[in-house]
Amino acid sequence: MVQVAPDWIAVDWGTSRLRVWAMQGATAREQRQSEDGLTGLTPDAFEPALLRLAGDWIGPDGMDIVACGMVGARQGWHEVPYVAVPTAPPVAAAVRSPAIDTRVRLWIVPGMKQASPPDVMRGEETQIAGFLALNKGWDGVICLPGTHTKWVHVSAGEVVSFQTALTGELFALLARHSTLRHSIAETGWDEDAFAAALDQARSRPERLAAALFALRADDLLNGCPPDTARARLSGLLIGADLAASRAYWLGQQVAVIGASETAAPYVRALQLQGVPATVADGDRMTLAGLTAAHRAL
Amino acid sequence: MVQVAPDWIAVDWGTSRLRVWAMQGATAREQRQSEDGLTGLTPDAFEPALLRLAGDWIGPDGMDIVACGMVGARQGWHEVPYVAVPTAPPVAAAVRSPAIDTRVRLWIVPGMKQASPPDVMRGEETQIAGFLALNKGWDGVICLPGTHTKWVHVSAGEVVSFQTALTGELFALLARHSTLRHSIAETGWDEDAFAAALDQARSRPERLAAALFALRADDLLNGCPPDTARARLSGLLIGADLAASRAYWLGQQVAVIGASETAAPYVRALQLQGVPATVADGDRMTLAGLTAAHRAL
Repeated sequence: MVQVAPDWIAVDWGTSRLRVWAMQGATAREQRQSEDGLTGLTPDAFEPALLRLAGDWIGPDGMDIVACGMVGARQGWHEVPYVAVPTAPPVAAAVRSPAIDTRVRLWIVPGMKQASPPDVMRGEETQIAGFLALNKGWDGVICLPGTHTKWVHVSAGEVVSFQTALTGELFALLARHSTLRHSIAETGWDEDAFAAALDQARSRPERLAAALFALRADDLLNGCPPDTARARLSGLLIGADLAASRAYWLGQQVAVIGASETAAPYVRALQLQGVPATVADGDRMTLAGLTAAHRAL
Repeated sequence: MVQVAPDWIAVDWGTSRLRVWAMQGATAREQRQSEDGLTGLTPDAFEPALLRLAGDWIGPDGMDIVACGMVGARQGWHEVPYVAVPTAPPVAAAVRSPAIDTRVRLWIVPGMKQASPPDVMRGEETQIAGFLALNKGWDGVICLPGTHTKWVHVSAGEVVSFQTALTGELFALLARHSTLRHSIAETGWDEDAFAAALDQARSRPERLAAALFALRADDLLNGCPPDTARARLSGLLIGADLAASRAYWLGQQVAVIGASETAAPYVRALQLQGVPATVADGDRMTLAGLTAAHRAL
């Protein structure tokens, strides 16, 4: 139980997970989460899922609930249009969205879009806003590794451009659902193998399709250990990501936003290119961004 | 029913499918197939699966059964060691393998392996042997598109080197199991979109990871038609494959072995690079290779 009643509720609603925080000002008093991600929900199931998880935090006078993430997508609770770059991350433009329970004052933070090359994000804009709120005047490139890794060019408080790579999703598909799955461990690591594969993919990115199959062949012929293969797969895919995003990070000040286990290989990969990177915790940035959104209501 | 009794049985046993032919000399009199691919079979289930499908072709005196494909893999019926390149495709080295039914005289064609870069094949060596049996003295590069596309350098009747790319498997994973699946049709085509994406991936292969996500973003922002997205995904992945295999096909005589729908986009892709390619039917090459194996018993 929360000892002191919250004044608002922060919500990060993604594809696979719903997370809520009982907030007092900028401070999270309690955090809860459920598996009620977008994937399993029909539009009329969002409000019950939220009330199941956080309903007891909402008093009879109602409460502001500020949400970011895929909740605002076409398959989400309410679709909220993207804001086009260049723009400040649009946390000050949260959209009031209807709810059946009149105590629920729902606000959804819009995502961002880029016309050319076509690109979109939902959720990361809030983390970027949080990072900029905590690092006033910061210019440079923000890397947000994950299922869909984002590289974001920030200047004078605005997102100028961004680029998404399927890196995390490719890793999961290849490691769990492809022929390579027989050769790749669920956990474990080999730092030297990671660095070598990263270098291989960075310097010869055009050979990726062949380098991936070689992981399987190297196991069949030489019994490559599965934790080594796991680190090599990560190195190949992050190397390919770095090759694709070179124009973003080369010679730039870089911040990596994410959970430590997700951020670590990117930080290491950037270090190996001679690019030092600041690390910022993903959850902390989400909360700082949602707090900025709440203050702007 | 076969009108005239076969003298031997040709078998192509892959991951997802078992196919058998009742052969008289080099001529197939009847073909049958079942879904008894390797994936669903324990080692003791291979012989019953074969007898269910082709048992009535085998007389009381027994019969030579010549098999190629994953049947000789570690997870197959009997493991048959790879033969190292450089070597002629080892159809003349089929390995006699035990069976419980004494009428079954089982022979399994070995696959090929390459030490560096590590690579393996099982099944394609038989198609290559078939192609070389039908095209005496042919030198050049053979492309075998599929789940795992192979590029094979052939000289003086021997396989000198080869390279595998995960192209077909990546296409299936991305089109059916990734975020892109929402934007990609099961069928349909757009030739101009294919050619443009191919060119994009060929000339900027290092941008593949970002180009893939752009397929999804282009649908969300611009409503890119799903058959166009399908052709673009194929173009990106085959373009990446061509970039990886450039040292194989550039300036070479190329033959593409495969079913027409699998071979067609590769033939078109090679034409767009100014490389004319001969096409050879995959099933016909398999039978010609197994026939060469049978003659060599």
